[in-house]
Amino acid sequence: MLSRQQLIQQIKQKKSFLCVGLDTDIEKIPSFIKEGYADPIFEFNKRIIDATRDLCIAYKPNAAFYERHGVPGLQSLIKTSEYLPKDCLSIIDAKRGDIGNTSGMYARTFFDRNAAGMDFDAITVAPYMGNDSVTPFLAFEGKWVILLALTSSVGSKDFQYLDVDGQTLYETVIQKANTWAGADRIMFVVGATKSTEFSNIRKFAPDNFLLVPGVGAQGGNLQEVCQYGITKNCGLIVNASRSIIYASNGEDFAEAARAEALKLQQEMEVELVKAGVI
Amino acid sequence: MLSRQQLIQQIKQKKSFLCVGLDTDIEKIPSFIKEGYADPIFEFNKRIIDATRDLCIAYKPNAAFYERHGVPGLQSLIKTSEYLPKDCLSIIDAKRGDIGNTSGMYARTFFDRNAAGMDFDAITVAPYMGNDSVTPFLAFEGKWVILLALTSSVGSKDFQYLDVDGQTLYETVIQKANTWAGADRIMFVVGATKSTEFSNIRKFAPDNFLLVPGVGAQGGNLQEVCQYGITKNCGLIVNASRSIIYASNGEDFAEAARAEALKLQQEMEVELVKAGVI
Repeated sequence: MLSRQQLIQQIKQKKSFLCVGLDTDIEKIPSFIKEGYADPIFEFNKRIIDATRDLCIAYKPNAAFYERHGVPGLQSLIKTSEYLPKDCLSIIDAKRGDIGNTSGMYARTFFDRNAAGMDFDAITVAPYMGNDSVTPFLAFEGKWVILLALTSSVGSKDFQYLDVDGQTLYETVIQKANTWAGADRIMFVVGATKSTEFSNIRKFAPDNFLLVPGVGAQGGNLQEVCQYGITKNCGLIVNASRSIIYASNGEDFAEAARAEALKLQQEMEVELVKAGVI
Repeated sequence: MLSRQQLIQQIKQKKSFLCVGLDTDIEKIPSFIKEGYADPIFEFNKRIIDATRDLCIAYKPNAAFYERHGVPGLQSLIKTSEYLPKDCLSIIDAKRGDIGNTSGMYARTFFDRNAAGMDFDAITVAPYMGNDSVTPFLAFEGKWVILLALTSSVGSKDFQYLDVDGQTLYETVIQKANTWAGADRIMFVVGATKSTEFSNIRKFAPDNFLLVPGVGAQGGNLQEVCQYGITKNCGLIVNASRSIIYASNGEDFAEAARAEALKLQQEMEVELVKAGVI
């Protein structure tokens, strides 16, 4: 469990606001791992975590990459969640959301170790079903909801930019969600492909942390994101997945991942200094 | 796999458009099942299915009720999916949705038996991320997407009713999704608590099947839903969960479930005759 204060402390200490996305695809991991281990996905994750844990402040497995393998996939996810370092924010990217009591079950699944064996600090949630689909996650004290606002997908244009009484739907989502809980409990997903939008988003979410996917493989630019989105407490968690975890496909994959993470951490340090966070 | 024509055929043959929701909660099932079987959730589902299969045309397990038990829960879900009768539409109520390649993994999870052991005919999908979060499910030929439009939760008011250029967001979702695929591939979730809305929804979805939760325990009224929502091909799949599966908590739970399902089937038969479907 990582409170807002602890998260900010970690960012200052590690001079990083990097999240490593554990979107581990069995078809993309080195063959010596795939062939040499009973649980290659966990083994891969373990080595990536060992190689990057001092350079990042969060890890984010995407549930789909594990669910597609059925029972063994879920076992890999559970083992990964147990292995995640306690000083990093552990995010399950599950994009869940259902009516109240059902969202409550998803919350138990990912937040309560006694339910399914997982104890994540935070979960991504889809906003479409509104308040009662989100609040059951907030009922778990100390846990975080990371609500989808503006995603980095092509389809974000279909609904998220629709005009709702003079503002976009995603702005309305942020505005409304901020009445459900404070910036110590809710973050928002904001895609990095639209970095100029960040200054606008900060009008609606001046204090919230924003989880920013799309830097690296998806084409976002770290400097631009910071120019428009960074706050005096940083307020950003920037995720990179493929550019780090698949930096090499050979025996040196973990070292290569570390080198990529280090490059991002160093760029982030510059931005943190520039913004006066450190 | 059930095509639109086969689904309509089943409805006419069984004189029913009932979906039984397998929202199986370990805390609510009879104690003789809970204590007497290695996999009580599957045993419960099996008996419910055996008792209702000639009265309904669809089954819908909600993923959250299984995921909260971790690995054993997933095993119960996989066994349940294998046991579902082939003449009924099998719907996984998972409300998934992610960027393109990730949605593709969720599609494999639930549609491709070789991935996770499940082979559902249909999945509920959340619309917020737009086109590329939905189309990967449609890439599985013969499978159905059931998109959230108007849900029966309190929180539906937060975003689904927002005014977008003179129509509501949920109408816009229906309108746009109908450009992605035909009524032979896309259905919509429409909550039964707003039965007067159905005539309006039919302007945007004249041919689509609508999956209607909220009849029974959630307070919806079957006759009203039909008055405003039924079409010449029926066009409705009405779900009931708690009112059927928890009709009794004793040794007779399966018979009691059958009696509740029969009551609904008989009411549905009247509506099908009234609408000229049979």
